[in-house]
Amino acid sequence: MSSTTLKILAKELHLSVATVSKALRDSHEISSDTKEKVFALAKKLNYVPNPYASGLRRKMSKTIGVVIPEVADSFFSEAINGIESVAQDQGYHTLIYLTHERYDREKAILQEFQSGRVDGILISVSGETSNSDHISQLMDAGIPVVFFDRVCEDIAAARIITDDTECGYKATAHLIEEGCRKIVFLSAPSSLSISINRMEGYKKALEDHYFKKEQGDVAICGNDNDENYGLITKIISGKSRPDGIIACVEKFTPVIYLACKDLKLSIPGDIKVISFTNLPTAAILDPPLTTVTQPAYEMGKAAASVLFKRLLKNNANPENETVIIPSVLMIRHSSGRHALS
Amino acid sequence: MSSTTLKILAKELHLSVATVSKALRDSHEISSDTKEKVFALAKKLNYVPNPYASGLRRKMSKTIGVVIPEVADSFFSEAINGIESVAQDQGYHTLIYLTHERYDREKAILQEFQSGRVDGILISVSGETSNSDHISQLMDAGIPVVFFDRVCEDIAAARIITDDTECGYKATAHLIEEGCRKIVFLSAPSSLSISINRMEGYKKALEDHYFKKEQGDVAICGNDNDENYGLITKIISGKSRPDGIIACVEKFTPVIYLACKDLKLSIPGDIKVISFTNLPTAAILDPPLTTVTQPAYEMGKAAASVLFKRLLKNNANPENETVIIPSVLMIRHSSGRHALS
Repeated sequence: MSSTTLKILAKELHLSVATVSKALRDSHEISSDTKEKVFALAKKLNYVPNPYASGLRRKMSKTIGVVIPEVADSFFSEAINGIESVAQDQGYHTLIYLTHERYDREKAILQEFQSGRVDGILISVSGETSNSDHISQLMDAGIPVVFFDRVCEDIAAARIITDDTECGYKATAHLIEEGCRKIVFLSAPSSLSISINRMEGYKKALEDHYFKKEQGDVAICGNDNDENYGLITKIISGKSRPDGIIACVEKFTPVIYLACKDLKLSIPGDIKVISFTNLPTAAILDPPLTTVTQPAYEMGKAAASVLFKRLLKNNANPENETVIIPSVLMIRHSSGRHALS
Repeated sequence: MSSTTLKILAKELHLSVATVSKALRDSHEISSDTKEKVFALAKKLNYVPNPYASGLRRKMSKTIGVVIPEVADSFFSEAINGIESVAQDQGYHTLIYLTHERYDREKAILQEFQSGRVDGILISVSGETSNSDHISQLMDAGIPVVFFDRVCEDIAAARIITDDTECGYKATAHLIEEGCRKIVFLSAPSSLSISINRMEGYKKALEDHYFKKEQGDVAICGNDNDENYGLITKIISGKSRPDGIIACVEKFTPVIYLACKDLKLSIPGDIKVISFTNLPTAAILDPPLTTVTQPAYEMGKAAASVLFKRLLKNNANPENETVIIPSVLMIRHSSGRHALS
């Protein structure tokens, strides 16, 4: 929408131009009441966004930015391939930015984008991100943002996710069926949407199977493998040792296996293990690992497709769809008797 | 060096300004004779490069580009972390560009850099890259290039490598000591420096141990896991089956393990396996994998340090040093009896 058009709307409604602009972009800073008024008048006066004006802001760099915590995780490396398969078809470059799970880096990267270095971004937020102002500021500046995997629930934006809650439930129910009576959930930082949802499924499954409070336990692991080793060792060498572990993210897996080996605990004999991961080596681990395998490539592809739909339409008022692509529980030896391989 | 200075040198030597400029940048397009003449006169006339002029060209973006084949390989994901640790200290952004082992993508990415999007690049070339003109063109345009891991031997540039030949030798000698009598080398594309050097070490070890021609074999694997599975299955199900395999890159490892499993061949009983890899799961595979572990993080750090040395010095005439950081042979069960774990 051109600035003249915005001015007319603003004058008519006794609002500032900035407020009208934000309202049209469905910014979280603007109340629903105000948004409704702005949309209603825009429709009445037949003011459609000016594609040239918004195009000018957006399609300068022929580049999209992908902001992720790390690449040393098979989910992200596969997702990148899905993203690039779409970006290439559109003649766009893909730039990968790593936050290393740090909020300050994520914020600095997004501020950099204000200069127009990229036309749009795909983001999976860091483990430290609980404040999302840096993301809504970027959206307010007219740069389309699509979340994938790790989302900010408080921002009205498109998001491509998997069925985390259901998979948390399925993994837990599977361990219960395999005979586990005390199951520990090893969580990634608890502010992350994926941690919250996977854990919610875990808790629901325990509840549905009439587990008592002491039969479940949640431990929050961090980024440091040595610290995680210490924590996991403590958990599995205690008196009331768990007989089942669910790892919320891939990086905990080698640590669990090594800790069990060092303590001479058998997987799955003493402890059954399931991990959320896309590890290409899952089937050749000792023992082969039961995984919740995410549709990483498809999620990357879907996220990029939604972003390009916006870039090509110059759509200043995004639809904020949520796409859910289901994951698969791949049962192997690490979780017990009913194994595939 | 300022253009006035270049003009004086050019006039004095009866050369074009472009030739003098390229000669001072040690371009491959200029003969050694001409370079010597240019350097000699520059020295005689005490013409030092003008830092402001070259700085203007170079330090615009506060960004370095990292061009690599893929991120789904633990060497590259670790190397990126090393690179970023240095770039962050310098207040630089790191952009990661993936070639997916394709020459045409690598060329397109490097052409994009001509516009000044990055101040310098770190590159590990694609499996298809045999022509290096796209890289020397970028260097001629004044953008510093540092190679790491996979280098172009025909370009005078700084390179950070590991002792590939020695490690190829050590891995092969180890398998021979463990009793192998027919060892296959599974190579990445044969134009790659890492393939050539690792294979050279392999061949030298066979020779030094008086192996006959039929006791060695080289097979070239590609990017497609299914095709690699077909090739490896053919090799290990033949009459004169090898009793040792050396995988030149990480991605062949799961394929070898799965092919052996499917053919009911025991590792290390029937076939001993060594892989060049930084896989975090190497020690928990079934059986634990003997690896040539590259100093990925250190190589990334060293590559970035060399690049920044140039960026900060505005050094138009790079020193072209070669830094060699040794790898480690980590002996585990997959290669036989003398295992660590």
